[in-house]
Amino acid sequence: MNSPLITFLSDYGHADEFVGVCHGVIAQRCPQARVIDISHTIPRHDVREGALVLRDALAHMPVGVHLAVVDPAVGSSGRSGRREVAVRTVREERLLVGPDNGLLWLAAARLDGVAEAVDIGRSPERREPVSVTFHGRDIFSPVAAALAAGESLASVGEPLAVEELRRLALPTANVLDGLLATHVLRADHFGNLMLDAAPEEIQEARIELGEAVSVEVGGRVHSGRYASTFADVAPGDLLLYEDALQMAALAVNRGSAAGLLKVKRDEELWIRPG
Amino acid sequence: MNSPLITFLSDYGHADEFVGVCHGVIAQRCPQARVIDISHTIPRHDVREGALVLRDALAHMPVGVHLAVVDPAVGSSGRSGRREVAVRTVREERLLVGPDNGLLWLAAARLDGVAEAVDIGRSPERREPVSVTFHGRDIFSPVAAALAAGESLASVGEPLAVEELRRLALPTANVLDGLLATHVLRADHFGNLMLDAAPEEIQEARIELGEAVSVEVGGRVHSGRYASTFADVAPGDLLLYEDALQMAALAVNRGSAAGLLKVKRDEELWIRPG
Amino acid sequence: MNSPLITFLSDYGHADEFVGVCHGVIAQRCPQARVIDISHTIPRHDVREGALVLRDALAHMPVGVHLAVVDPAVGSSGRSGRREVAVRTVREERLLVGPDNGLLWLAAARLDGVAEAVDIGRSPERREPVSVTFHGRDIFSPVAAALAAGESLASVGEPLAVEELRRLALPTANVLDGLLATHVLRADHFGNLMLDAAPEEIQEARIELGEAVSVEVGGRVHSGRYASTFADVAPGDLLLYEDALQMAALAVNRGSAAGLLKVKRDEELWIRPG
Repeated sequence: MNSPLITFLSDYGHADEFVGVCHGVIAQRCPQARVIDISHTIPRHDVREGALVLRDALAHMPVGVHLAVVDPAVGSSGRSGRREVAVRTVREERLLVGPDNGLLWLAAARLDGVAEAVDIGRSPERREPVSVTFHGRDIFSPVAAALAAGESLASVGEPLAVEELRRLALPTANVLDGLLATHVLRADHFGNLMLDAAPEEIQEARIELGEAVSVEVGGRVHSGRYASTFADVAPGDLLLYEDALQMAALAVNRGSAAGLLKVKRDEELWIRPG
Repeated sequence: MNSPLITFLSDYGHADEFVGVCHGVIAQRCPQARVIDISHTIPRHDVREGALVLRDALAHMPVGVHLAVVDPAVGSSGRSGRREVAVRTVREERLLVGPDNGLLWLAAARLDGVAEAVDIGRSPERREPVSVTFHGRDIFSPVAAALAAGESLASVGEPLAVEELRRLALPTANVLDGLLATHVLRADHFGNLMLDAAPEEIQEARIELGEAVSVEVGGRVHSGRYASTFADVAPGDLLLYEDALQMAALAVNRGSAAGLLKVKRDEELWIRPG
Repeated sequence: MNSPLITFLSDYGHADEFVGVCHGVIAQRCPQARVIDISHTIPRHDVREGALVLRDALAHMPVGVHLAVVDPAVGSSGRSGRREVAVRTVREERLLVGPDNGLLWLAAARLDGVAEAVDIGRSPERREPVSVTFHGRDIFSPVAAALAAGESLASVGEPLAVEELRRLALPTANVLDGLLATHVLRADHFGNLMLDAAPEEIQEARIELGEAVSVEVGGRVHSGRYASTFADVAPGDLLLYEDALQMAALAVNRGSAAGLLKVKRDEELWIRPG
């Protein structure tokens, strides 16, 4: 029989003991749980980035309890203005635990939505006194551990209507008159830009692998190529490619597409053949 | 039956393989042990900071073996001038393993002191040849693993009188004539200052939640407020608050109290109402 | 019965979720496996450094499956020009999994070479579709997990002649006419220089502990001392010493030997008494 699994994502970073303390709290409540750290270097307070990383990472995680903490509202007021929640997804029945600020939304949506939700702000599993600033330690970790230990959602929180959960909207790519209108979802550390378009949409815009493309953004047009790999274009040249998430992305071979295009998150780019 | 637990704190950082190698050494001696990394980013050679983090983190860790390595004296001479030790605390019977330079002292003191201590410098568990510079690998990790595997203190080292252990002194807050004389124990990465005063001492100094306070240090007086959360004061303003460790702390909303007050570790501040 | 063990070394860093995703993939295929992270901060694309760290770390790891990913060629072309492999070492029967670019070679050579090798590029364990850029997730991690779960090498890949494996050459120290000709294998973060000479070769060159040495490189001669520890020489002075790997190394007490000697990787130094 395998250990129950908890995955853990946060913006706590590794410069102090926050992550370690949460691991300790989990081990106190559910000693047999195994914890996989997805990432703790989500940019501080960047809920959207955390939601995307969580959504994409869960495809590679065993089904279990999925703890996520990116929580700009914590500590900002006596009542933080956002709930703490635990939810069960429709597909795969994964249990997600975190602040109700949209962080869990994209992952749940990818799994066909939420079947059951509870408000854990006054959970019997929480650690008293609950601090103003460290809900990861006092609420989210002990609740995640209780769920891993076999507790039901109903026993760790109060019922919450699914419609009350905070949603997170993403831009949507679309194809019109042979033009792919797409948006930058994330930039990675090399300046590669992850777009909201799937390869099917590239095809729909009649952009062919190996052929030239033009990318228009902010009134400027850049020339590039739809390629399989970076080395298919010259150093310094722009390429459109399918990334490891099987989504469209833009890069500059040995350079930075973010630097070249000077494009902001969610800004629209128009990509067309030629 | 649960796996034996080892927690691990050090100043090794994550830039090389030191932490990983210690995990390997532990797994060789006690394959069933589970290791929780509290933090490996204690500032290099900062025994005091390591001792405070260890003390405060243990409250959130299951009882087990607690390995800690912040060891400026290692490698500095043939005889390092400090012992390697393992101790058992009076309360909770936690086993602490590390250099006898004060690193373990605050944690042990919080747990009512040391019931039994051994010198592990010539432990039968050590790995020969013991290197001059990497006692974490050659002495501390294998001894911690042996204890996790069920060995007794007596079997991993030579008896040591508790009075011989190196102590670590902290400043002490006190209240006199309605004035709270307190000291900075640590500064976090945001410039928040953790003090040595408990909320009871704030009360004793007749400082009321929501009311103005003045903070005097180095001949200058700063105005602030005793508040629950950062958002209770204007951006740039100073606040006194109770932190996640349930201790008094100073912060500047969206700013740095360390930068504003220019106060050094252990320097005395006077806080009074008004 | 203990859990199967996987060690994991890479140049993925901790700035994103790559390491966490590989942990998830491993847990999906072999939930009972335990993973020890040796290091993920190998300098990006530095196969030689990764190979040295892997070789030296394995001495401290239980026998198991040893996953290593430093892979400059991945993503650079449709056909990456290097195989993906899994090998079993002659001594200790460790299973090494990674790109066939020399990364595994030094570790295998230290263990008396490779007894069996398979090409896992088209492994039945790989995750389809295999991405162009993230073979750690799509090939190496699932194959390592399958081996940890008890699959044989023959079942995860196609037989490969050991002679076909890519080798990695290191320079070799030697002693001639009382002169030690040695080379810098790595520099650590403090500027200490790890050499390719063993203490036996120092002895052979008639260099005595505690005595003066001269170090010649790039036409310049530096004076130093063969010492046990840094504190045996004055601050700013050069010392030759035996490091934690029991190999010769050069350092400057409270300074940087790399900065003083301005020596490059694999450059030859001549060390002699006096």
